[in-house]
Amino acid sequence: MKMYDIIQKKRDKCKLSKEEIEYFVNGYVKDEIPDYQSSALLMAIYLNGMTDDEITNLTMAMANSGEMLDLSGIEGKKVDKHSTGGVGDKTTLIVAPIVASVGCKVAKMSGRGLGFTGGTTDKLESIEGYQVELPRKDFINQVNQIGISVISQSENLAPADKKIYKLRDVTATIESIPLIASSIMSKKIASGADYIVLDVKTGEGAFMKTFDRAKELANKLVNIGNLAGKKTVALITNMNIPLGYEVGNSLEVKEAIKVLNGEGPTDLTNICIELATCMVMLCKNIDKSKAEELVKESISNGSAFNKFKELVEYQHGNVSWIENPDLFPKAKYNIEVSSNTSGYIYKMNAEKIGKISCSLGSGRERKEDKIDYSAGITLLKKTGDFVNKGDVLAILHTNLEDSIDVAKEKYLEALEISDLKPEKEKLVYDIVM
Amino acid sequence: MKMYDIIQKKRDKCKLSKEEIEYFVNGYVKDEIPDYQSSALLMAIYLNGMTDDEITNLTMAMANSGEMLDLSGIEGKKVDKHSTGGVGDKTTLIVAPIVASVGCKVAKMSGRGLGFTGGTTDKLESIEGYQVELPRKDFINQVNQIGISVISQSENLAPADKKIYKLRDVTATIESIPLIASSIMSKKIASGADYIVLDVKTGEGAFMKTFDRAKELANKLVNIGNLAGKKTVALITNMNIPLGYEVGNSLEVKEAIKVLNGEGPTDLTNICIELATCMVMLCKNIDKSKAEELVKESISNGSAFNKFKELVEYQHGNVSWIENPDLFPKAKYNIEVSSNTSGYIYKMNAEKIGKISCSLGSGRERKEDKIDYSAGITLLKKTGDFVNKGDVLAILHTNLEDSIDVAKEKYLEALEISDLKPEKEKLVYDIVM
Repeated sequence: MKMYDIIQKKRDKCKLSKEEIEYFVNGYVKDEIPDYQSSALLMAIYLNGMTDDEITNLTMAMANSGEMLDLSGIEGKKVDKHSTGGVGDKTTLIVAPIVASVGCKVAKMSGRGLGFTGGTTDKLESIEGYQVELPRKDFINQVNQIGISVISQSENLAPADKKIYKLRDVTATIESIPLIASSIMSKKIASGADYIVLDVKTGEGAFMKTFDRAKELANKLVNIGNLAGKKTVALITNMNIPLGYEVGNSLEVKEAIKVLNGEGPTDLTNICIELATCMVMLCKNIDKSKAEELVKESISNGSAFNKFKELVEYQHGNVSWIENPDLFPKAKYNIEVSSNTSGYIYKMNAEKIGKISCSLGSGRERKEDKIDYSAGITLLKKTGDFVNKGDVLAILHTNLEDSIDVAKEKYLEALEISDLKPEKEKLVYDIVM
Repeated sequence: MKMYDIIQKKRDKCKLSKEEIEYFVNGYVKDEIPDYQSSALLMAIYLNGMTDDEITNLTMAMANSGEMLDLSGIEGKKVDKHSTGGVGDKTTLIVAPIVASVGCKVAKMSGRGLGFTGGTTDKLESIEGYQVELPRKDFINQVNQIGISVISQSENLAPADKKIYKLRDVTATIESIPLIASSIMSKKIASGADYIVLDVKTGEGAFMKTFDRAKELANKLVNIGNLAGKKTVALITNMNIPLGYEVGNSLEVKEAIKVLNGEGPTDLTNICIELATCMVMLCKNIDKSKAEELVKESISNGSAFNKFKELVEYQHGNVSWIENPDLFPKAKYNIEVSSNTSGYIYKMNAEKIGKISCSLGSGRERKEDKIDYSAGITLLKKTGDFVNKGDVLAILHTNLEDSIDVAKEKYLEALEISDLKPEKEKLVYDIVM
């Protein structure tokens, strides 16, 4: 087999065989195939697409390129979730304890934030003492004991995906549905759960800007999951508006605690209930309405919050911070942004808001950057709210005095204020299963 | 400017600006842009195409990447020719002396053979003593003195094209008309002539397998030449059948001598007259019929042959070999291939015949391979001829005893013998100007 022939085949719109895809993935990981041939193939895939079979074979080859997490030591059904990434998306912190508290097993590896979206691992590390690295044995034991563990994603999970992603990132081949789908699913499949629930975000603050693209991606993801023998469900959800009212690591943990206590904002609470319901439905093989009942009960009777405390305790986090969120360190500067006009907030650019939060210290541009857990933004007004001139729209939290002026200005630019009241947007557009 | 954005633009079917194309070409030549980004762009160009403006800008950027030959020291109009490469194509050896003998100036750089097609430089080197390397000053002086010089192509002629071609060769991006056209024309433009005549070959023995592809390429070539201020004409000619009856370096020189003496085979003679006529027509700005008259006269009155001898003499070649071609060394083995059936030769695969000739020692697979000037094939029967079982079809000339058996077998496979008499094929399909 020759890489040249594989490139030529995809260039000419032909279907690649399983063997050809494996030859490429394995050869690239082993540095036997050079970057310049791989990038030519990636561009041909970008422009000519892939069939579902090809995408599944690419996914499996990338999953098999590193550690395939063996969760067979955990009794019961394991369920995983994944979000395509958004601004203010703290759903894992809420959903994982909920589903664990009703008896599903959550052995979860989470990523770190990069660019304008946050990562669950960083958020958990904002809790004093929380350990995101656990030996495999302890990870398995903990899930057997309390039904949940959330750790940092292994460096050796789908290394082919990491290497290919890095090349896509510099060759303008990111926004390809076959490549995005195989990248997401290779890691999910290597993570070893039995069931997968995916949150495909669409809108201004997401990678998939339109519903149609998001739906196309959701269909591919569900297809791959099912073809790989993992029952998979995907929700297509709104990311035109940041989720909840807090953006930034410890701010988001505090908001997650509110939701677990039944005191969270409606949009965030509802989307978490929807995601958790799908996970419980799959895992317990029960009706959706029955699953929803269990989920709501776990919040109202406190078992979801208790499960979160148990998780933090088992992973050496300071539980008193969870019980009294005022203990989280606060940023030195907490600056109000006021409206310079009156009207309805017609639109918010979630991506821009995510980037402003990063500039305040909450995120990283490069992998090696340090992040400030206390930095971020508290939104006081969101799309659909009426504001008077001088009303406070948001509070910027930061320790970087120099970042404030630009951030205030950019925050105002991220909003569109109008005489028109926008139509209320849906939170969940569709469920693909 | 960023290479990423340039790739993205072409990926999204947008037109690249002159500045963007220059940024890519110059950055790649200077090793500032990596291979993996260049190959992604090349695949995007392959799949999404380029406008005539883009192709011209790419051509000029590649031409300007190295030496731009300054022929202003030569008095009179300079005319160049180029063939897209074929089997048995010795036209430069014939056409260049013809047009020089009627007063056009030919300051020509020629390439070496690679793969199944030969190169003029190698053919000239089969003449004892012939020097293909001349200092620029001597090259210019010689053209001023005798109207002709044929030397080896400068290493520094369009180095961007060389580097890009090498990358295309390993990333399945060769057969792209914008990339082929800019590659050819960058070298022609850097070579400094005022007029260019192109021989675009089509058929089994050429890179352009169909007339439509050849016509598309011819149109692009002529457009680029004219946009770059060089009056350009392209002929689309038949390469289903090897040109003439000889394939291999010194064999082809000997056949060229026959044509210059008015004793050559009809197909080769006619195509040379056609090419030379176009060159003279452009260069002297006269009617085609008048140009043809001059060309035919130069053969019949011996001035073309004399010009060839003069060329060889000035470049230190042994003129006695030209006067008495029997002096060219002969191969040790001269093996007849006989037909094992009776019928008409319905088809000949010129590409296969070129490859067989290489296997006998006449060509090189890699740049560093040595070639055997005496090796090659003499065709005795060509398409349209009737043969009886046992008739000799060809003679294989080689010094490699081990190559003979396979070559004999392959030669028979390269022919299709049938009861049907094939229709006579045209030699020149079209002229684009």
